[in-house]
Amino acid sequence: MESGKNRSAVALLSGGMDSATAAAIAKHEGWMLHVLAVDYGQRARAELESARRIADALEVESFRTVGVDLRALGGSALTDDIDVPKGRSAQAIGEGIPVTYVPARNTVFLALALAAAETADARGIVLGVNALDYSGYPDCRPDFLKAFSRVAATGTKQGVEGNPVKILAPLIEMTKGDIVRRGLELGVPFEHTLSCYDPVEKDGAWLHCGRCDACSLRRKGFLEADAEDPAPRAS
Amino acid sequence: MESGKNRSAVALLSGGMDSATAAAIAKHEGWMLHVLAVDYGQRARAELESARRIADALEVESFRTVGVDLRALGGSALTDDIDVPKGRSAQAIGEGIPVTYVPARNTVFLALALAAAETADARGIVLGVNALDYSGYPDCRPDFLKAFSRVAATGTKQGVEGNPVKILAPLIEMTKGDIVRRGLELGVPFEHTLSCYDPVEKDGAWLHCGRCDACSLRRKGFLEADAEDPAPRAS
Repeated sequence: MESGKNRSAVALLSGGMDSATAAAIAKHEGWMLHVLAVDYGQRARAELESARRIADALEVESFRTVGVDLRALGGSALTDDIDVPKGRSAQAIGEGIPVTYVPARNTVFLALALAAAETADARGIVLGVNALDYSGYPDCRPDFLKAFSRVAATGTKQGVEGNPVKILAPLIEMTKGDIVRRGLELGVPFEHTLSCYDPVEKDGAWLHCGRCDACSLRRKGFLEADAEDPAPRAS
Repeated sequence: MESGKNRSAVALLSGGMDSATAAAIAKHEGWMLHVLAVDYGQRARAELESARRIADALEVESFRTVGVDLRALGGSALTDDIDVPKGRSAQAIGEGIPVTYVPARNTVFLALALAAAETADARGIVLGVNALDYSGYPDCRPDFLKAFSRVAATGTKQGVEGNPVKILAPLIEMTKGDIVRRGLELGVPFEHTLSCYDPVEKDGAWLHCGRCDACSLRRKGFLEADAEDPAPRAS
């Protein structure tokens, strides 16, 4: 971790449990967090509300949203009118690339975080990607993060001047159970996290559907951690 | 160059002369172009109109714009209310990183083009970066493009499946004079290109200011090519 005067990092918060736990870990390690939430035209706009609540609970330095219209590019069940798959086992989820994959999403998010980091002279970017109990998305793997680190080192003023932004992915080697355990230790407000691909609105609150891939992985995490999920669920 | 059935490429058009010439070269080499113009909240919104006219003249397969609010991230004379420098020599322009640099702009643009390419199963991304007579921006250099190619190879479905998108930067080793000469040979509609950082509106048309860094480099290109710039200029 950086020491000295510059310990600012841009933390990408999606509203889900992984990015919230990643941000909490980075904060625990001494980083001052500037949250960036990306409004990419997602079906689940509730995610942005969740990101805001999580940022408040983590007492971050700043919070901002940036809009990018990924719907204009199309191609995913998370931005378009494509059915989200339901009832798949956690094992089946890791096989192949699912329809919920948003093309190049993490590349776009990291690019925006890099722009924010460069503007604010922050030295880190925190994101909640995880390569173990993962969704089968190609942009959640260590090779990808390593490649993006080179982009940050070569394509920015800071990088050229010898202060490249570090890509911090503290969950990369953790299981979902590890993530829940560590999150609970650090006081992550899991009740405010929304990781569902297809949440249901009820009486003004958002409920997890309980049956999409993200809900299956979440359930697995809480089971492994022997803890109860405080977030409301429809089924 | 790719041969066989898939010769589609996403071409980033900024409205300027470099990206227009890069697209014309790629088309001449047999690529079918799908244009992506990024609306990043630039001061010079006229750039998008220029991109549209250039795309029409090049008879591309498709044209779309995608919005991303880089103003929300701030930090450049091209998106914020910072004065654009005027009257600098072409030699002085390459020294240091100027205030017109938009943080991580090419990273953001390439990320969006990658998302578009992945959605459309295109195999190339064309952009007009140039490392010789260049603006001093770090994200215009070969090292950066190489790093981004690794991002495309590791972070996308196509890349993982062995069909990574190629980053095509045909101008990378060309002087401004070379670019103008090649563009004229290929019929690039230079009269529709707008490369100025601070264009002036007059009688419904946009004029180049003639004094910003981009105008100085443009003038140098036409001088070297011994050709007359058909685009209107205020001074």
